Amino acid sequence: MEPAATCSSDTVWHPHAVTRVERERLNGHRGMVIWFTGLSGSGKSTLAQAVGQRLHEEGRRIYVLDGDNIRHGLCADLGFSDMDRQENIRRIGEVARLMVDAGLIVLTAFISPFTADRQRARNLISPGDFIEVYCDASLAVCEQRDVKGLYRKARAGLIREFTGISSPYEPPSNPEIAVPSGLESVGACVARVLAAVNPRIDPA
Amino acid sequence: MEPAATCSSDTVWHPHAVTRVERERLNGHRGMVIWFTGLSGSGKSTLAQAVGQRLHEEGRRIYVLDGDNIRHGLCADLGFSDMDRQENIRRIGEVARLMVDAGLIVLTAFISPFTADRQRARNLISPGDFIEVYCDASLAVCEQRDVKGLYRKARAGLIREFTGISSPYEPPSNPEIAVPSGLESVGACVARVLAAVNPRIDPA
Repeated sequence: MEPAATCSSDTVWHPHAVTRVERERLNGHRGMVIWFTGLSGSGKSTLAQAVGQRLHEEGRRIYVLDGDNIRHGLCADLGFSDMDRQENIRRIGEVARLMVDAGLIVLTAFISPFTADRQRARNLISPGDFIEVYCDASLAVCEQRDVKGLYRKARAGLIREFTGISSPYEPPSNPEIAVPSGLESVGACVARVLAAVNPRIDPA
Repeated sequence: MEPAATCSSDTVWHPHAVTRVERERLNGHRGMVIWFTGLSGSGKSTLAQAVGQRLHEEGRRIYVLDGDNIRHGLCADLGFSDMDRQENIRRIGEVARLMVDAGLIVLTAFISPFTADRQRARNLISPGDFIEVYCDASLAVCEQRDVKGLYRKARAGLIREFTGISSPYEPPSNPEIAVPSGLESVGACVARVLAAVNPRIDPA
């Protein structure tokens, strides 16, 4: 901030930029990213919304980034090629970084199939404030669920570059937490995520 | 949300996505955008930080988007051509939209020289939640201040497409508020902005 630079100076009051730490103290918790990754149908959005709901009920400031609010807006200009997927995840990582700086707990729910892209997102966030949650459900389970009918379309060749079918998914090798979302209930998976989040939640 | 679609169903607990209204009730105020526009050196960043500080001290959840946190991150791939300026403002508008949905008061400090781009940002936000603040300082005043030395460089031809010198600035024709930031102190300008913000701040 350069008060004298851009506005007539004020001899009494010295404004300063509000810091992340000040915001976190106001909120009573740290900002952080809870990054859900996994195949289509592995439970990312459901878990992100459910964990977010629980945290909100405890008075935490949360926000869920997912395809619904990203793909039609900030990333509406992007497709599903490898290059566009990379740029999509880059922008999501940057938005998450801003929201963490704003003091929020950001829950992201994107397939984010490439290890390098997830690593880049992680690198934007302070160590300890990026919690990668691998929604571990097998392709067979996700394809059998197929509630949106996307796997059927992909198998029929109607969707190109569909993760797990015609585009690779690279599972995390060392996520903060892996939840067996192909086997366990939403409630059980939520409890696992919260157990990883809660020890990190108090502000500085 | 489709709990049955993406995770094993839970017969007891029905998670739902937390809404903007629920977040605003938790915060005790509405989310909104306070969009500062004006020439380089007109006081946008100083005023955004100062207004943000006052709101924070009153317990509001605020965040300032400015060149420091946008141009090196989300928009690091963009330059200053008309097309890149347009994409820059588009992304900022989309991020502001997400942050308003997250319940924050977002203060943006960008020259945002083109009326059409500002209008597009406004169109993303609910009517009444977009407060355009025109930092009205003349080119002569801004160029005389020139604390960053940018006008001098632009006049010397060292910076291309510099707003006010070699690239146009279109003043808002109907901003929610215009502050005489070329004449008045920071404190006086902040008071004018807060007078426009406070009647809109209570949550639904």
